[in-house]
Amino acid sequence: MPKQIAVGDQILLCSPDRKTFLITVATDRTFSTHHGQLLHNDMIGKLYGEIVHSSTGQPYVMLDPTLEDRMMKVKRLTQIIYPKDAGLILIKTGIGSGMRVVECGAGSGASTLALAHAVAPNGRVYVYDREERFLRNAQANIERAGYGHLVEFKVRDVVEGFDERDVDVVLLDLPSPWEGVEAATRALRGGGRLASILPTYNQVERLVEALEAAGFVMIETLEVLLRHILARPGKTRPFERMIGHTGFLIFGRKALWPSP
Amino acid sequence: MPKQIAVGDQILLCSPDRKTFLITVATDRTFSTHHGQLLHNDMIGKLYGEIVHSSTGQPYVMLDPTLEDRMMKVKRLTQIIYPKDAGLILIKTGIGSGMRVVECGAGSGASTLALAHAVAPNGRVYVYDREERFLRNAQANIERAGYGHLVEFKVRDVVEGFDERDVDVVLLDLPSPWEGVEAATRALRGGGRLASILPTYNQVERLVEALEAAGFVMIETLEVLLRHILARPGKTRPFERMIGHTGFLIFGRKALWPSP
Amino acid sequence: MPKQIAVGDQILLCSPDRKTFLITVATDRTFSTHHGQLLHNDMIGKLYGEIVHSSTGQPYVMLDPTLEDRMMKVKRLTQIIYPKDAGLILIKTGIGSGMRVVECGAGSGASTLALAHAVAPNGRVYVYDREERFLRNAQANIERAGYGHLVEFKVRDVVEGFDERDVDVVLLDLPSPWEGVEAATRALRGGGRLASILPTYNQVERLVEALEAAGFVMIETLEVLLRHILARPGKTRPFERMIGHTGFLIFGRKALWPSP
Amino acid sequence: MPKQIAVGDQILLCSPDRKTFLITVATDRTFSTHHGQLLHNDMIGKLYGEIVHSSTGQPYVMLDPTLEDRMMKVKRLTQIIYPKDAGLILIKTGIGSGMRVVECGAGSGASTLALAHAVAPNGRVYVYDREERFLRNAQANIERAGYGHLVEFKVRDVVEGFDERDVDVVLLDLPSPWEGVEAATRALRGGGRLASILPTYNQVERLVEALEAAGFVMIETLEVLLRHILARPGKTRPFERMIGHTGFLIFGRKALWPSP
Repeated sequence: MPKQIAVGDQILLCSPDRKTFLITVATDRTFSTHHGQLLHNDMIGKLYGEIVHSSTGQPYVMLDPTLEDRMMKVKRLTQIIYPKDAGLILIKTGIGSGMRVVECGAGSGASTLALAHAVAPNGRVYVYDREERFLRNAQANIERAGYGHLVEFKVRDVVEGFDERDVDVVLLDLPSPWEGVEAATRALRGGGRLASILPTYNQVERLVEALEAAGFVMIETLEVLLRHILARPGKTRPFERMIGHTGFLIFGRKALWPSP
Repeated sequence: MPKQIAVGDQILLCSPDRKTFLITVATDRTFSTHHGQLLHNDMIGKLYGEIVHSSTGQPYVMLDPTLEDRMMKVKRLTQIIYPKDAGLILIKTGIGSGMRVVECGAGSGASTLALAHAVAPNGRVYVYDREERFLRNAQANIERAGYGHLVEFKVRDVVEGFDERDVDVVLLDLPSPWEGVEAATRALRGGGRLASILPTYNQVERLVEALEAAGFVMIETLEVLLRHILARPGKTRPFERMIGHTGFLIFGRKALWPSP
Repeated sequence: MPKQIAVGDQILLCSPDRKTFLITVATDRTFSTHHGQLLHNDMIGKLYGEIVHSSTGQPYVMLDPTLEDRMMKVKRLTQIIYPKDAGLILIKTGIGSGMRVVECGAGSGASTLALAHAVAPNGRVYVYDREERFLRNAQANIERAGYGHLVEFKVRDVVEGFDERDVDVVLLDLPSPWEGVEAATRALRGGGRLASILPTYNQVERLVEALEAAGFVMIETLEVLLRHILARPGKTRPFERMIGHTGFLIFGRKALWPSP
Repeated sequence: MPKQIAVGDQILLCSPDRKTFLITVATDRTFSTHHGQLLHNDMIGKLYGEIVHSSTGQPYVMLDPTLEDRMMKVKRLTQIIYPKDAGLILIKTGIGSGMRVVECGAGSGASTLALAHAVAPNGRVYVYDREERFLRNAQANIERAGYGHLVEFKVRDVVEGFDERDVDVVLLDLPSPWEGVEAATRALRGGGRLASILPTYNQVERLVEALEAAGFVMIETLEVLLRHILARPGKTRPFERMIGHTGFLIFGRKALWPSP
């Protein structure tokens, strides 16, 4: 049955000019836009998809935020992993319901949201970062989005290793992920997947070398270019600006080679 | 605890020259490769990630197939939705554990695998196709991959509508998806997402027009270009060939506009 | 023998922080930058490639402007044809020394610069535009760049036709280039090339249809994506932003089909 | 006045199914195609753009080859520089009529054709290669295309330097172009441009470092991605396959820094 909007819900407001705002609904509060005020009380008890009008009469659509909305609206202390890249990470690593995943470092928690979303309702994500400040910001972002029960946070440097064993996937989001290959190898089960995202080709080369030395197989490096299309009757074309680069994505799988 | 390979398991064999084979393990069977024979009996009871040797002594790594492996290895009667596109569909629609999703048509079931994987363990995917032949092939592919319990299959044309109401997502993988916008609108809950993939600009334009007429919001059209990088110490470069186009991805969300 | 910088020369100044400025050298003038003043008198008599210092001691390199520099620095009243697209137009149409080329419309003259540069020293470019204002701005840009002797300018709408016959190339830079196909066909010699640039795929489709109807052969549509790479020791990567779209390029060649 | 096809001309034949063939016209010769025979005698005296029929009645259009046609049809002993890349090299270096250009190495002469075409009728291209075999093949390709009078060929390794001074442009098409930076710097006039094309990131990084050390300014690295569009009424889309990578293009300009 369709869910009614309630106090405490995070909702995505979509303006007639296609701007979006992620707000938490509270009694007797107002939200100011470039179209005047919206009253939270007008939203409570409505259905997702319904309309609320601003004080100047503009219709705003009330939507339940998607994973992507939540990822793009995290409070950022760092560069985030973008949805285009997170989508490929999910598909290539095959993260799914019930899996156990290690992530290091935390970033701002955008990728953690994607991982937690994918392992729900009964998997688990273990997030490591040596910077307590980043870890706490990521944690606050995860909890605000309602995924806190799926994630554990630990302040630790990657070279000290991870506590978990036989995990399905390790995501290394570090400037020097080769420093984490040993820890990842110990934490992964046989056939488990490692993923990483890196801005420069130099880092890619060094990580791929470390993965080969550690016996990983099916090592691949990819880059996702996303093109937005402006579709309008009789005048459709790609947008004039695009993101030219976020990062290279590196994948590998752990093999259990016999000891020499 | 690491899982042992058992009779009936689908496993992915990875050769030393990076070829992959998806096989179902059976007693007393052999698998022929360009490196000679592999004995299934040598695989049974081993751990995922371990090695089996061919009759010529070549090491093959035994891996549990990822979602992507399964998608790429479906028996194809049609063009499939590629992992790069399925990844973005998952992220943009926010499909997750427990959701209810309608897909029309079935294709060869590659995208159905991704949807079923994402709604597991307790969501549901309803797949419609007017061609029984395609539907049954997709169904066989889904069941072979172990996702059959999450999916229902119905032979029906999109213009006859869907049985479900208040679903979270509708994926239209049809040459004329505008014919399915009415059915999708009735099936979706408020705030529910529609996604489609189309090869030509002309189809994009026509679908976007239909979505706007039906009151959808946050309509977007995107294209994913995937670039493979050949990462080798001292000589890293993009691959010389790439897929130039699979399809444009179109997204929208259902608003509950008041009746006039 | 290396040329000395003289009064009246256009020179490109390149700052230590990689900004560029196109100036015309004049006696007793100063040029103001974010690094203080540069004295024109310091430049006169120097060699191209030499350094002039600003009042704050910053070194500016004095360069002779390339075709691209001139194209990017035209006074713009319209969108220009970018160097990446002009380069492909030159190569695909094979415009060279001594050829005769018709261009319609004038834009801001950026593409005219490329055409004039390519037909020098003894070819000719005929530029048509129905808007005198645009034509005169283009003309001023061409003359300022020193290509005026190679180009004729005519105020006229494309549907009234071109005066020239047996030209080698016609470039149609119009929103409705199909209106110019008849004029272009009459102006071109057998085997002559037509080129056009258009932002939307709808326009492309319509032009290609008109070219096919007019008997053109080797019709092709292309798009150039240009990626800038930030090359630095140990941390090389593509730039984070890029131009996602300027226009589609359409090419065809005139065949002399026998009259029916 | 339109030129008639004569014995000895190179002409491009375009078949009804869009295949192209570059042939040299000779008396009493036949040319075999998948549509039967074409008689050279039927071509002699015709105009470019006119039609010749095969023995099975298929119409072939006789065209004068463009620069691109000639580049793509050189006899290849090596990888060639593609037209998309040559176009950008011409635009970025501003090579034009009357300029003097050094190229090292020769490749198969495809880029030499573009350079010779651009400096015509009174410029000059000096081509160096340490492999006589490649140099002679390039030379034969250049002469066959009618550009021989504009080009000189010299067997020599780049580290031995070039004979020319004050040239406008140096194009280094070598696996180790940093070995040619010193020779290029000596050969270039102040403000002269250097260009290079390299397949790997590692080579780019090393060349850029060498150019910076040698005092070059306006150093840029670029990559051209070319997308072919299949434009058809009602079903226009990008082609499904594309070239993913040819090379990175590196550009710089020589500054005359004062001696320390």
